[in-house]
Amino acid sequence: MIIIGEKINGTRQAVREAVNARDEGFIANLASEQAAAGADYIDVNVATGDGEVEAIEWALGVVKGVTDRPPALDSADPAVLERGLELCGENRPFINSISGEAERLEGVLPLAVKYSCPVVALAMDESGIPETPESRLAVCRRIMDRALEAGLPAGDLYFDPLVLPVSADCDQGRVTIDTLRLIISELPGVKTVMGLSNVSFGLPLRTVVNRAMMAVAVYQGLDAAIIDPSDRGLIGAAYAAEALAGGDRYCRAYMKAFRSGLIG
Amino acid sequence: MIIIGEKINGTRQAVREAVNARDEGFIANLASEQAAAGADYIDVNVATGDGEVEAIEWALGVVKGVTDRPPALDSADPAVLERGLELCGENRPFINSISGEAERLEGVLPLAVKYSCPVVALAMDESGIPETPESRLAVCRRIMDRALEAGLPAGDLYFDPLVLPVSADCDQGRVTIDTLRLIISELPGVKTVMGLSNVSFGLPLRTVVNRAMMAVAVYQGLDAAIIDPSDRGLIGAAYAAEALAGGDRYCRAYMKAFRSGLIG
Repeated sequence: MIIIGEKINGTRQAVREAVNARDEGFIANLASEQAAAGADYIDVNVATGDGEVEAIEWALGVVKGVTDRPPALDSADPAVLERGLELCGENRPFINSISGEAERLEGVLPLAVKYSCPVVALAMDESGIPETPESRLAVCRRIMDRALEAGLPAGDLYFDPLVLPVSADCDQGRVTIDTLRLIISELPGVKTVMGLSNVSFGLPLRTVVNRAMMAVAVYQGLDAAIIDPSDRGLIGAAYAAEALAGGDRYCRAYMKAFRSGLIG
Repeated sequence: MIIIGEKINGTRQAVREAVNARDEGFIANLASEQAAAGADYIDVNVATGDGEVEAIEWALGVVKGVTDRPPALDSADPAVLERGLELCGENRPFINSISGEAERLEGVLPLAVKYSCPVVALAMDESGIPETPESRLAVCRRIMDRALEAGLPAGDLYFDPLVLPVSADCDQGRVTIDTLRLIISELPGVKTVMGLSNVSFGLPLRTVVNRAMMAVAVYQGLDAAIIDPSDRGLIGAAYAAEALAGGDRYCRAYMKAFRSGLIG
């Protein structure tokens, strides 16, 4: 299970303020605490207004100062992603994200190929998020075809089936999981990722719902998750579900996570 | 989700001693704390040696004194079950359990029919626990055929796919869940139950694994679980997974559990 720490995100007010004020301590702390909690990548989203290129130059420098975990470069602007990719050098980052939208595909796919990076690919396009698992799969298939044409290996594509809140529509948990299963069974060689905490939006005790979603998704074969890694129960659910799914021989990964203090 | 509280079980040393000493306070406390934590049934297993009929008469009186939740009568001896059924009267208990073993089928099925009780049916027979999901299903199908012949409605059969520790064999989580799925898809009208904590035997942080198993099993359609209901995270995983599976319209059951203080 690949963990992408989600906390440095400019849509959160405290982060936006810290980025705009160039508050190095605040951002450094978010990066180091997520690395200590087991994040494999540190998501960096500094889309807080004008000057996003300068903001990501600053933020990547801050993150690099406290952890060697590579970033997940999180922007809708190819120019921001390209500057980030240049700065990362050998520390191969994630690109977050592309979708079926032509503009993002055309702007970002060549960068992923040039820098040989894994990419989060959202199961949506210009028309928004398709309602059914089958229509989300169709979008993913189009993205995959374009990516393979462009020269990106299937294993660098991390499809996000997308998660909508179950509080608003109780079918949404199943729509997401069914989409995940279809991607795994129908698009051989690709990987999967989920920004799963959206599922619990609007409910009390969100972490209880998030942990259950993590267990169900990992059991189905989810490869990566964009989460708050300081939720130890969420990390525990991922390791436990891998053990239940049979992918963790002798429960070695679970035992290692326990001994390292990552879970429990 | 039907919760059967597992704590009054004579295989646990403290319970065995309390039963043998007729320690009313100890047993009453286990019953009332499980009822308060949300148990729908209180399992009563007093197989601690000789005199099991007298022991269950005593124990059922103690349980009845503190809660109106019906018991799950847990014994291998039909005479003990029959005495328990007589004592329960209108408070229809669970019978725990039958299996594919001829002796238990012949001794217990007529009681379940006579008293019109739901029955836990284990996916095993004289030869032990079959290794594959398909062979466990075959045992369940034989039990179902016998039960229907005897006059028990399919909806009173709660099949337990059986859970072995993943620490000893990492395929066991998937064997159990695949068996559960086969029972649900191939034996229409029956219910399912799981005594799930065995899955984590031999591992540290057992509750982390048990909660993940609960989430995965409930998402697949599990109807009932035999658990320690004082593990609030386990109850939370069950309610959350029902919401994710789409069975909880507007998350009403989840919200009710939250407001009642059963989860979180």
